Amino acid sequence: MSIFDLIRFKNKNSATTAKERLQIVVSHQRSEQNQQPDFLPHLHKELVEVVSKYTDIDKEQIQVELQNEGDFSVLELNITLPSTADLT
Amino acid sequence: MSIFDLIRFKNKNSATTAKERLQIVVSHQRSEQNQQPDFLPHLHKELVEVVSKYTDIDKEQIQVELQNEGDFSVLELNITLPSTADLT
Repeated sequence: MSIFDLIRFKNKNSATTAKERLQIVVSHQRSEQNQQPDFLPHLHKELVEVVSKYTDIDKEQIQVELQNEGDFSVLELNITLPSTADLT
Repeated sequence: MSIFDLIRFKNKNSATTAKERLQIVVSHQRSEQNQQPDFLPHLHKELVEVVSKYTDIDKEQIQVELQNEGDFSVLELNITLPSTADLT
């Protein structure tokens, strides 16, 4: 099963096809030797900046979630994009 | 099921815990009204640049995959990070 299948599976029941949606997921699996603090909490603003170069983003329409479990951290951004009808 | 569960599920059987790994997945669900070309193909270099600010990346250890299906596009970067023992 590819990540593509997994994301489609996740979104299948929540899709509102009139909305443009963007999801960014960064997962970091650290080795046991790595005692450095995780950098994922610092990434989300820069990721939004990169995407903003290519599409309009309403910063109030961004949901950020960060989860940690053992050596595994996941940063998830869910962004509802303005519909193309709203763009000039 | 959260995206966190899904990614753990995907990685469970392929994990080599001695390796640091980073995965970035950007999925874009476009509305039917959006006739613009997809911007995901342009993102991957900039995403790598952002992450490079926080951790060393060997550019030969990056796998990039782009998949499209209907209004749904997914960009997936799989990066094997140098182990902390290799860093000075």
